[in-house]
Amino acid sequence: MKIARCTTGGAAFWALVDVPAQTVTPIKGAFADWAPRVTRGEAGAIETTGGPLSLTAVRLLPPIEKGNRVVVAGANYAKHLAADFGLVKPHGQPIAFLKAFGALIGARDEMRYPPLTDELDHEVELVAVIGAESVDRDDPLSSVLGYTVGNDVSARDLQRSGPPGVGMDLFAAKSQDRSTGLGPWIVTRDEFPEGSPMRRLTLKVNGETRQDGNTAEMTWDVGFLVRFVDERSTFECGDVMFTGSPAGTAQGTGLFLKPGDVVEAEVDGIGILRNTVGPKLAR
Amino acid sequence: MKIARCTTGGAAFWALVDVPAQTVTPIKGAFADWAPRVTRGEAGAIETTGGPLSLTAVRLLPPIEKGNRVVVAGANYAKHLAADFGLVKPHGQPIAFLKAFGALIGARDEMRYPPLTDELDHEVELVAVIGAESVDRDDPLSSVLGYTVGNDVSARDLQRSGPPGVGMDLFAAKSQDRSTGLGPWIVTRDEFPEGSPMRRLTLKVNGETRQDGNTAEMTWDVGFLVRFVDERSTFECGDVMFTGSPAGTAQGTGLFLKPGDVVEAEVDGIGILRNTVGPKLAR
Repeated sequence: MKIARCTTGGAAFWALVDVPAQTVTPIKGAFADWAPRVTRGEAGAIETTGGPLSLTAVRLLPPIEKGNRVVVAGANYAKHLAADFGLVKPHGQPIAFLKAFGALIGARDEMRYPPLTDELDHEVELVAVIGAESVDRDDPLSSVLGYTVGNDVSARDLQRSGPPGVGMDLFAAKSQDRSTGLGPWIVTRDEFPEGSPMRRLTLKVNGETRQDGNTAEMTWDVGFLVRFVDERSTFECGDVMFTGSPAGTAQGTGLFLKPGDVVEAEVDGIGILRNTVGPKLAR
Repeated sequence: MKIARCTTGGAAFWALVDVPAQTVTPIKGAFADWAPRVTRGEAGAIETTGGPLSLTAVRLLPPIEKGNRVVVAGANYAKHLAADFGLVKPHGQPIAFLKAFGALIGARDEMRYPPLTDELDHEVELVAVIGAESVDRDDPLSSVLGYTVGNDVSARDLQRSGPPGVGMDLFAAKSQDRSTGLGPWIVTRDEFPEGSPMRRLTLKVNGETRQDGNTAEMTWDVGFLVRFVDERSTFECGDVMFTGSPAGTAQGTGLFLKPGDVVEAEVDGIGILRNTVGPKLAR
């Protein structure tokens, strides 16, 4: 199943997506009621209400409710660290941090160009959505409702602005308002083979491929990351977790995003985020 | 005014606190309705509903609603950086990061001892509560509803566990479940002189003073920090901002917290967090 969060201008709602028919049909009840049941694989966990709407008639929102957390688990593709940051020394564990909810945009929204940066960068990522009430640490993947696509947009100059000894300023770099694409929808876990997904993920700018990797290259797989984060700060139903980005970001190539750029982040078999970079605002 | 968030076991509610009378009286309406009016200094912005309850009959919750952000602006007391971390080089700006909502506890709750750490530390801090719908960057203090007390409890060994080149793992260190005291209540800004508060802040463990500083020692004052954070990721009404901790943490002294310790964090004229450290759980 593909599950989107949508609006037609009023309140947000969750909906089943039928991509061939290009429709969405609203889901009955609260996410917290049906998501754990879908995650457990219960038949009939989702009931719809009302007739289908045209996919083009709704705005696709990031598939997360306010109050849920956006966790980013990073440093997870060795080639990205080496090629883009010059970090080649292997380390025993990844790192996680929180992203502000207000940083998120939907799959077709304009990407805000934050006024404080001159180095706006892209990071296509597989994103896991937690659907269980709590994570089973012995089988962390069983807690995943499904997967979506993220573009962990980063202001690289601000990322370097942290005090010496403290390290990267990941808040300034990655929590800028309305910059991080998330969506277009969640593809439920039953549509993936057992185990951590092995999917190609690409990022194009104006049609030109900038990142082209595969989630199989992750240093730590999705199950490891879910457990790693949960051991440090407990996941709740509806939280999302970014899982790191492959090589090819502007941090390595110098090809930073510019106003008007069309940025397409895609994970094979899930969907595409297509966000146009907005005008650069005065500080 | 002193404004607390409370529960008697059911739904949480906001209440006016009368400390001499040792009572709380529930406030009518939603935080988002009255907080901006109180922040603007409107007379009669708060109406109460129902009779007073005994302060001892309610549980004091962290004075923040789920969905609001916990921002920590750190590296803000030079003596703490020098004495506790050996960081003496001045830097042009502070650093901010997000803390998980699930890390918060109220003023009298048990402090969870997280199983992954052996170096649990304390950080008493002044915490500003944003009450305006949006921050006026030309007069950022006018956006502050009031102040409360925070204990930014930190797992120091985990703080050092981040990958080289990335820096401190502030998520693992500072987002551990049910560890960070916040409260006991918000003291509204009209009870402070104009400008950034200049208040003594202390932290005691089992009655012994470990931290003893003054918010006047901040490198960057509250107004600067509110603007600094807001420029990077916009504040919403109800968000809270920790403002850094003075010297004297266990990071410098080696006196880490132990199960059974009674930890008292106080900001003069605001109140005291008194949290007992719980048992250390197996991993």
